[in-house]
Amino acid sequence: MKKLLTITVIGLILLVCQTACTSQKNNNTTSIQTEIPVRPTGQKDVILLTAPPIDTVRVGFIGLGMRGPGAVERWTHIPGTKIIALCDLLPERVEKAQEILKKAGLPKAEPYSGEEDAWKKLCERDDIDIVYIATDWKHHAKMGVYAMEQGKHVAIEVPSAMTLEEIWQLVNTSEKTRKHCIQLENCVYDFFELTTLNMAQQGVFGEILHVEGAYIHNLEDFWGEYWNNWRMDYNQKHRGDIYATHGIGPACQLLNIHRGDRLKTLVAMDTKAVNGPAYIKRQMGKEVKDFQNGDQTSTLIRTENQKTILIQHNVMTPRPYSRMYQLVGTDGYASKYPIEEYCLRPSQIDSQKVPNHEDLNAHGSLPTDVKLALMDKYKHPIQRELEETARKVGGHGGMDYIMDYRLVYCLQNGLPLDMDVYDLAEWCCMAELTRLSIENNSAPVEVPDFTRGSWNKVQGYFHSFVK
Amino acid sequence: MKKLLTITVIGLILLVCQTACTSQKNNNTTSIQTEIPVRPTGQKDVILLTAPPIDTVRVGFIGLGMRGPGAVERWTHIPGTKIIALCDLLPERVEKAQEILKKAGLPKAEPYSGEEDAWKKLCERDDIDIVYIATDWKHHAKMGVYAMEQGKHVAIEVPSAMTLEEIWQLVNTSEKTRKHCIQLENCVYDFFELTTLNMAQQGVFGEILHVEGAYIHNLEDFWGEYWNNWRMDYNQKHRGDIYATHGIGPACQLLNIHRGDRLKTLVAMDTKAVNGPAYIKRQMGKEVKDFQNGDQTSTLIRTENQKTILIQHNVMTPRPYSRMYQLVGTDGYASKYPIEEYCLRPSQIDSQKVPNHEDLNAHGSLPTDVKLALMDKYKHPIQRELEETARKVGGHGGMDYIMDYRLVYCLQNGLPLDMDVYDLAEWCCMAELTRLSIENNSAPVEVPDFTRGSWNKVQGYFHSFVK
Ligand SMILES: NC(=O)c1ccc[n+]([C@@H]2O[C@H](COP(=O)([O-])OP(=O)(O)OC[C@H]3O[C@@H](n4cnc5c(N)ncnc54)[C@H](O)[C@@H]3O)[C@@H](O)[C@H]2O)c1
Ligand SMILES: NC(=O)c1ccc[n+]([C@@H]2O[C@H](COP(=O)([O-])OP(=O)(O)OC[C@H]3O[C@@H](n4cnc5c(N)ncnc54)[C@H](O)[C@@H]3O)[C@@H](O)[C@H]2O)c1
Repeated sequence: MKKLLTITVIGLILLVCQTACTSQKNNNTTSIQTEIPVRPTGQKDVILLTAPPIDTVRVGFIGLGMRGPGAVERWTHIPGTKIIALCDLLPERVEKAQEILKKAGLPKAEPYSGEEDAWKKLCERDDIDIVYIATDWKHHAKMGVYAMEQGKHVAIEVPSAMTLEEIWQLVNTSEKTRKHCIQLENCVYDFFELTTLNMAQQGVFGEILHVEGAYIHNLEDFWGEYWNNWRMDYNQKHRGDIYATHGIGPACQLLNIHRGDRLKTLVAMDTKAVNGPAYIKRQMGKEVKDFQNGDQTSTLIRTENQKTILIQHNVMTPRPYSRMYQLVGTDGYASKYPIEEYCLRPSQIDSQKVPNHEDLNAHGSLPTDVKLALMDKYKHPIQRELEETARKVGGHGGMDYIMDYRLVYCLQNGLPLDMDVYDLAEWCCMAELTRLSIENNSAPVEVPDFTRGSWNKVQGYFHSFVK
Repeated sequence: MKKLLTITVIGLILLVCQTACTSQKNNNTTSIQTEIPVRPTGQKDVILLTAPPIDTVRVGFIGLGMRGPGAVERWTHIPGTKIIALCDLLPERVEKAQEILKKAGLPKAEPYSGEEDAWKKLCERDDIDIVYIATDWKHHAKMGVYAMEQGKHVAIEVPSAMTLEEIWQLVNTSEKTRKHCIQLENCVYDFFELTTLNMAQQGVFGEILHVEGAYIHNLEDFWGEYWNNWRMDYNQKHRGDIYATHGIGPACQLLNIHRGDRLKTLVAMDTKAVNGPAYIKRQMGKEVKDFQNGDQTSTLIRTENQKTILIQHNVMTPRPYSRMYQLVGTDGYASKYPIEEYCLRPSQIDSQKVPNHEDLNAHGSLPTDVKLALMDKYKHPIQRELEETARKVGGHGGMDYIMDYRLVYCLQNGLPLDMDVYDLAEWCCMAELTRLSIENNSAPVEVPDFTRGSWNKVQGYFHSFVK
C-alpha cells in the first residue's frame, strides 16, 4: 500500500514535470504572448462603428506645440466645423493659436492652460463633439480615455498609445462608450499611397505578398525643439520601434488588416545606440550609459494569411528621409523612396489601356509616361475631390488636410471613420511588442487580436462615402 | 530507510525535471543552436592562409552551362594562366567551350564529359593548380571537397554549399589540406560596392551600424533554361533564403565579419509561395501542393558588436532587379538601388575637399556632382588598376573579370585570397539557418562561429597586395 502510494506520488510528480516541460517546449517554437483582457460582459466590438450624424462638428484642441496649430489652421478651412476650445499647458501657445482663428475671421475659442489638468475641463464641456489631441506621446492615451468618458469622440496624434495597457484602455473605452477613437495617421492619405492603395484594391498588383514601411527621419535639428525634451527622453528610456505608425499604417491598409487578415507574429532587432547618447553628451555634457533606443530598429511581421511586413525606425543617423512604402505583389510592385516606381507584368500593362512600350519587362520599372498615365487613371476618388483645396491648405503636401476633412465628413454623415480603434491598436502595439522581442534576443512575439474575434467580419479595407 | 530512499528518488526525479525545464526555458529566450563539430586535433584555422606562389596558374573548369563559359572566356584574358581541362556532363557544352580557347588562339583543353563522375578525373590530374566549379548548386560542395583532397585549390560558384553539413566539410577539408577554398562571389567587386567599401574603410560613414543586401531578380524568363530544371526544383523543395551570397557578401565585408566582428543571431520570415507553384502549373500542368520557397524571404541578422543586417530573396515576382546594398553609418549613408545615393553630414563633406553646396543637409542625398567627385576620390585601388580591361572583357559590367583577376593575382603572389572558406561558410549558412528559423515560427537561430574561435584574430577586412 505504502509502495503503491509512493509510485503514485512519483507518477504524479513526473506528470507535473512533463506538463511544465511541454509547455516550455511549445513556447520555444511558438512565441511570447501578452495577456488579452477579457471583454467586459455586454460590451461589443466597434467594427464599422457609426454615430449619429453631426451637422456642425464642434472641436476642442489639446496640445499646441509644433504640430497642433497646423491642425487648428486646417480646421478653419473645413466647412461645417466650429472651433470651441484651445488648450495647451503653456498659455502663450493658446494665445498664438487664437490668432489663427482671428486671421480666419472666426470668434475666439475658450482657452485652457496653466495647469497640468486644464485639459480635463475642456473635455468636460457639453458643447464639444470631438477632442483633438496633439500633445507629447505620454499624454495621448489618458486624454483620449477621459474625453470618451465625457461623451466625446476623440482624435489622437501618432502614436496614440505607447503601451499595451494604454491601448487596451482605449479599445475598452471606445467599445464601452461607443465613441470614435481615431489615430491621426496622415501618411495613409499621401498622394502616392492613396493612388497605390486604389490600384491594389483594383487588383493591379495581383495578390499582395509583402509590404514595407518606415519612419526614417534624421531628427538632429529637431531634438532641441520639443516641449520639455519629451522626445529624446522617450528614446533614451525605451527600446523598440516607438514611432511605427507612418510605416505600418499604409502597410496594414494594403493588407486589409482586421478586414480579412490580421497581424500574427513579429520579430525585431536593433543596432546599438550611438548617436542618441552622443547627442546628449554633445548638447548637455551628460554621459548616458544605458541609452535604450538603438539608432536603427527593424521589424518583420507575419500575417494570418502568410503575408509579411518590414518596418524600420531611424531618427538618429544622417540619411535621406524615407517612409519606405514598398509593395510586392504576385503581378506587380510599387515603391515610393527614393523615387516613385511601379513595375508590372507586361500583360498587366496591356490591360490598363495606357501608353505602352515595346521594351517593357517584368524586371524594370515603368517608364515615366506609363507611370504617370497609370497614376492618373487610378487617382483615388478622395484625391480627385480634394486635391485642389488640400494643396492650398497644405500640411505635408495636403495629406493632413485630407485626413482632417475625411474625419469631419464621416462624422457629419454618420459614417464609419477611415480608421478605427483597432487600427490604432495594431499600429501602436509595435512599440511594446518590438521591445519585448528585442529584449528577448529577437524571439517571436504574438500580436494580440485587438478585435477579440472580429478581425474577419469585414472583407477588405474601404473608405465610406454617402451613397 | 525505505522512506529515505523514496524521498531521495523523488528528489532525484524533481532535479532531473527541473534541469530539463530550465534548459527549455533558456532556449526560449536564447535561440536555436546547431552543432559545431569539434576541430580534429592537429588541425588549425585557415585565417590569412597563404600557399606557395604559383607562376602560371593552371586551371580546370567544371560546369559549362549558362555561367561557366563566361569564366573560361575571362581566363583567356588573364596573364599567367593556362586552361588545362574542361568538364561538363554534356559533351556538346565542352565542345562549345573549346571554341572560346580557339578564338583566343589557345590550345585545346583536355575534355571531360559523358558521365556523372567524369569531373573526378579532372580533379585527379597532376598538372592543375585550381579547380573552378560552375555546376548546379547540389554538385558544388562535393566537387570542392574532392578537388582539395586531390591537392587542388578550389573556386566554387555561389552558393558553394547548401547545408551546414556541406559547409563544415568544406571548412574541415580546407583546414586539413591547407588548400584555398574560395566562393566566387562577384558582387563584392562591383564598382559601387568597391568604392563604398573603400569609403567605409576610410571612415567616411563613421561607425557602420546597419547594412542591407538582397537577391531580387525575377527569374520568370530563366526557369526553363537551367540544366535538368535544377533551380526551380531547389526552390520547390527548400524554404529559406537559398541564394543569399550576393546580398550578404558585400554586407559582411563592410562589417568586418570574422575580422573583428561576427554574425550572431538571425530571424527569418517568408511570404506564402504563390508564383513558384503557379509557374509549374502553367508550364507543366502539375499541381504542386507543398511548394516550399516563399515568393519573398526576409532575414534580420545581429552581430556580436550589435550591428544589424537585413537580407532579402525574391526570384518570383515582377519587380525591378535589386541587390539593395544599403549602408547606415553614424555619419553617413549609402544606397545603390534603385538609384545610387550617398548622404553625409555637411561637416563630413567639408572635410572631403570635393565641390560643396550651401544647401547640403543631413537628410537629403548628395547632389550628383558632389557624389561623382566623392566616388572618384574613393575609387578603389583595384578598380583603378583594372577598370579598363575589366570593361573590355565584361561579365556583369566588369566585376566578374576583377574577381577572377584578383584570384589569380593572389595565387601568383602567394597572398591570402580576398575571401576565405569562412566567408563562404558565413554567407552560405543562410540557406539552412533561415529555413530553421522560418520552420520554427521565426525563432532566433545562432550563427555558428565557423572559425571555431578565431573570428577576432584579424582586425578589419582588407585586400592583399604585393608590397
Ligand atoms: N502626424 C505627423 O506627421 C506628425 C508630425 C509631427 C508631430 N506629430 C505628433 O504630434 C504630437 C506633438 O508633437 P509636437 O512636435 O507638436 O511636440 P511639441 O513638444 O512641440 O508639442 C507638445 C505640446 O503639448 C503641450 N502639453 C504638454 N503637456 C500638456 C498638458 N498636460 N496639457 C496641455 N498641453 C500639454 C506642450 O506644452 C506642447 O506645446 C506628437 O505626438 C507627435 O508625434 C505628428
Ligand atoms: N555569380 C553570379 O553572378 C552567377 C550568375 C549565374 C549563375 N551563377 C551560378 O553558377 C552556377 C551555374 O549556373 P548556370 O546558370 O550556369 O546553370 P546551368 O544549369 O546553365 O549550368 C549547370 C551546368 O552544370 C552541368 N553539370 C551538371 N552535373 C554535372 C556533373 N556531374 N559534371 C559536370 N557537369 C555537370 C550541367 O550539364 C550544366 O551545363 C550556379 O551555381 C549559379 O548559382 C552565378
